[in-house]
Amino acid sequence: MPMWQIYHPEDAFSDEDKQAIAQKITGMYDSFLPRFYVNVFFHAVPKASFYIGGESADDFVRVVVEHIARSIKDAEQECQRFLKGCARVLEPYVAGRGYRWELHVDETPFGLWTVNGYKPPLPNTPAEVKWRTENRPSAY
Amino acid sequence: MPMWQIYHPEDAFSDEDKQAIAQKITGMYDSFLPRFYVNVFFHAVPKASFYIGGESADDFVRVVVEHIARSIKDAEQECQRFLKGCARVLEPYVAGRGYRWELHVDETPFGLWTVNGYKPPLPNTPAEVKWRTENRPSAY
Amino acid sequence: MPMWQIYHPEDAFSDEDKQAIAQKITGMYDSFLPRFYVNVFFHAVPKASFYIGGESADDFVRVVVEHIARSIKDAEQECQRFLKGCARVLEPYVAGRGYRWELHVDETPFGLWTVNGYKPPLPNTPAEVKWRTENRPSAY
Repeated sequence: MPMWQIYHPEDAFSDEDKQAIAQKITGMYDSFLPRFYVNVFFHAVPKASFYIGGESADDFVRVVVEHIARSIKDAEQECQRFLKGCARVLEPYVAGRGYRWELHVDETPFGLWTVNGYKPPLPNTPAEVKWRTENRPSAY
Repeated sequence: MPMWQIYHPEDAFSDEDKQAIAQKITGMYDSFLPRFYVNVFFHAVPKASFYIGGESADDFVRVVVEHIARSIKDAEQECQRFLKGCARVLEPYVAGRGYRWELHVDETPFGLWTVNGYKPPLPNTPAEVKWRTENRPSAY
Repeated sequence: MPMWQIYHPEDAFSDEDKQAIAQKITGMYDSFLPRFYVNVFFHAVPKASFYIGGESADDFVRVVVEHIARSIKDAEQECQRFLKGCARVLEPYVAGRGYRWELHVDETPFGLWTVNGYKPPLPNTPAEVKWRTENRPSAY
């Protein structure tokens, strides 16, 4: 976590675009989370398998985000700030190229999460800082 | 939202089937939601990557639905009605062709959702009606 | 449910590996759930579409689990036992082969779930036992 899944038309993004998008998404979190927490997967969906409002579409990008390490859903301001950050990162690649787009975030239980078999450290603990500094998980 | 992801055997559905299924799914919501809210993605999964009960399967369709705009999970009757509607739409394409099938719905936070960078309007507000009437998002 | 989605590098697993992993996952549940409840899908993701910490990766396996039939998220010991079971099953195929890996579980509402159009029986009811014994759903 955060895990981003980006469903996009087949020709929407070059490999360089995908790398740049993934780096910018990772940058949204790297002042407080280990970088390796950030997973970004791109899934090209053929037009005949991609329907918006019942019509097949090749002009739409759908972003699904799962958060585990931090919960913000009950803090309206933080939600707004986060969503604005998403828009800032994504808009040049989506609206800026004529794609419609949609994004939602789900939050899943902290206690049902492992990285390399380790239970991740609690937020803002020395162990989490160590994982962030070293950019890898370790026993703690 | 609603976002439907349909994982299916490679030869289960023609392009015409997919279009028809997506239109019928969209029809389940269009008396109260903007049509463009409804996303339907089809994912063909090869038999060697698709396991039910530990056995590889090409006779099973798995439907995952995510709802954001409306929450019904605490209203048992609405859940039942919704699930019956899903069965009515899907059964000709699944059970009717000999496929086993399974469907579940998750609900995610309304406050963590954007469409074209806009926070969607609250249920049954004039802005939502406008989005529905015009079938596109706009500032409000 | 349980539904496991395994996102992996293109050459990580042979068909025999996938079968073996799916059978071991199914074995984690089969003392108490119908075997056909267990869905395991493998999704090969090309390196240019798979980013960890902003870097494209072919050494990472990401496992997403959705639970519906049982909720354990408020029972810390059960969570730990379950996650240890996941590690025991997966580690020979991931860490044992040099892959980094991450897993999380989400829980979704029991009342928004159908199998072959049936609402699944409640936990530990005679109907659930029958479904488990017969390894198929039926009217009850």
